[in-house]
Amino acid sequence: MLRSINTDGIWAYSDHLPAVAEHNRVSLGEGQSPLVKSVRIGQELGLPNLYFKLESLNPTGSYKDRISAMAVSLAKEHGSKGCVGTTSGNAGGSIAAYAARAGVKYHVYVQENIVASKLEPMIVHQADIIRVKDFGFEPEVGNRVFRKVLENAEQHNWELAITAYAFAPLAMEAVKTIAYEVAERLTADAVFIPVGGGGLLTGIYKGYADLVQETAMKQLPKLIACQSTGCANVANAWKQGLTEPAAGASTAKISGIQVPNPPDGAQALQALRASGGFAEAVPDEDTWYWQEQLAVKEGIFCEPAGAIALASAVQALKAGRIAADEQIVCLVSGAGYKDADRMSAIVKKAAEVPLKTVDEL
Amino acid sequence: MLRSINTDGIWAYSDHLPAVAEHNRVSLGEGQSPLVKSVRIGQELGLPNLYFKLESLNPTGSYKDRISAMAVSLAKEHGSKGCVGTTSGNAGGSIAAYAARAGVKYHVYVQENIVASKLEPMIVHQADIIRVKDFGFEPEVGNRVFRKVLENAEQHNWELAITAYAFAPLAMEAVKTIAYEVAERLTADAVFIPVGGGGLLTGIYKGYADLVQETAMKQLPKLIACQSTGCANVANAWKQGLTEPAAGASTAKISGIQVPNPPDGAQALQALRASGGFAEAVPDEDTWYWQEQLAVKEGIFCEPAGAIALASAVQALKAGRIAADEQIVCLVSGAGYKDADRMSAIVKKAAEVPLKTVDEL
Repeated sequence: MLRSINTDGIWAYSDHLPAVAEHNRVSLGEGQSPLVKSVRIGQELGLPNLYFKLESLNPTGSYKDRISAMAVSLAKEHGSKGCVGTTSGNAGGSIAAYAARAGVKYHVYVQENIVASKLEPMIVHQADIIRVKDFGFEPEVGNRVFRKVLENAEQHNWELAITAYAFAPLAMEAVKTIAYEVAERLTADAVFIPVGGGGLLTGIYKGYADLVQETAMKQLPKLIACQSTGCANVANAWKQGLTEPAAGASTAKISGIQVPNPPDGAQALQALRASGGFAEAVPDEDTWYWQEQLAVKEGIFCEPAGAIALASAVQALKAGRIAADEQIVCLVSGAGYKDADRMSAIVKKAAEVPLKTVDEL
Repeated sequence: MLRSINTDGIWAYSDHLPAVAEHNRVSLGEGQSPLVKSVRIGQELGLPNLYFKLESLNPTGSYKDRISAMAVSLAKEHGSKGCVGTTSGNAGGSIAAYAARAGVKYHVYVQENIVASKLEPMIVHQADIIRVKDFGFEPEVGNRVFRKVLENAEQHNWELAITAYAFAPLAMEAVKTIAYEVAERLTADAVFIPVGGGGLLTGIYKGYADLVQETAMKQLPKLIACQSTGCANVANAWKQGLTEPAAGASTAKISGIQVPNPPDGAQALQALRASGGFAEAVPDEDTWYWQEQLAVKEGIFCEPAGAIALASAVQALKAGRIAADEQIVCLVSGAGYKDADRMSAIVKKAAEVPLKTVDEL
């Protein structure tokens, strides 16, 4: 399963991905993201073997790029002229870029009030964007948009491009490559993974399951689901020993992990059990704090959701759920530039940059 | 000279870089940027072997990260508590991130009117920023700021962190790794390289010169200096057969290549001669056009300076200075998100995204 350094992106692992003919494979060099060792936070916490997997350094700034590469390649393989889905942001910017590369039209339904920094990349890559009034607020509108997406996919032979196993299980297989890459570098004891819809954790579990079956690896690492206390459906289900996430409104303020009804939640819970893992729910304030610490002490500027894994690791360590000598990997899911509002908030807190004359230097 | 896949960033080539003890080496996983083949623009142009080297996918979004990794590592190696320099933007955001990681304070002098999107990353990584009135406008102020930088470096034993061979020749050696990486994948006939100060082209030349000396490579590719017609000091010198760039004010509107007095210009001209290359100067409008084409037809969203290599390749092809069957590499130097104003301009030109009710779908 060793990748070739001369093969691009996820296709380095094509023998473990859904079949796509070589001429239909699309890549922008996604994957092979750096796994860097903590230089200061780990020491301060007493976690000498703390690592960050920088999915934030993918072509459009998030792990979604792996899935997008697979989704638009499948569209080509299936002879589709388009792909269709909904997005709250990162997936949309990612699929738009890959669809442009593939020469496949991306039809995407978004909320009325989608923020500019999430909408703009889709415009730049000329996606067909449909803003829908009350989508994201009125559940009935959401249901009807969804039916429309499925109808379109069926009617036009468009590939379904929604980043969840529940809707696009073949495209989601690309997430397995994260596990393959980590395992090439490190025998991890625990991997902390942000959970919104649950597909990221599910895919990483499947990747590790492959490795256990096919290589000398005896045991997969504990996988830990990291959620906001404001949207802790998987974490609550885990605590109560349930096999399905409890539905419930989200009060989380962090983009990407506000998923009141996670489509892959049941599979994620199954992965926690199978890996001997567990779940953490952390206050958004903790996640914001660690986002800033990552920038100041590690040189890593990620979006808030990218810091929830570290915030959860800190909480797990304090509670004794991980030990100080374990090899810990925190998944940094998205880049700092993807959340312009949060960037502004951090800048506002800082002392103003003084203006000096050259005589005052 | 083959890199190990298990070594981070530029240090995969540590045997060809200035000596730094392992415990002083800093990396955020810079380098190993994707080299992707054109999927549509090359075909349309009649250039079937057109490639893009995506330096835009480095940790802070530009090739400067390679240099920053080296600069702050040298600071640690030399026992420096700080590093110091000036910046117009990309280098500053990059050095700020790496300095944070290294635990070295970055002292940086910037213009009064530096745009927010360039200043903010430096604030997030807690650089010591000094905005100087009239810096960048009054030549005398610039000279005095510069003397201050050199004075500080000397007085406090701070590492000089300016991304030019003329000032920081050891740190700039990291640019050689771009040539090593391209050569691992491809025997290029021509490499198109944006030229602002000239250091990027100079470093790539040095990397190829190593390969000719140490490997079976017989001849290095033609290196082509790509400039704006509004700031064509190297290109003009090339045309006139001069060995030094002609100084002159810049009217270029593209950030990163507005360098009226390029510090590494003479070395870049020498590299053009030694490689059998040449220089192109293209109007900013061409560069903006190809920036948009890259997003729409290749899925690559880069900053304007990142598209000047492609704009120059198109011009060179039309003029017969390259042939259709050559293996062409265009260096994409920086990411689209680094130029928020240009993003807004592209979005403004697009048709407004319509708002529909669910009944209208």
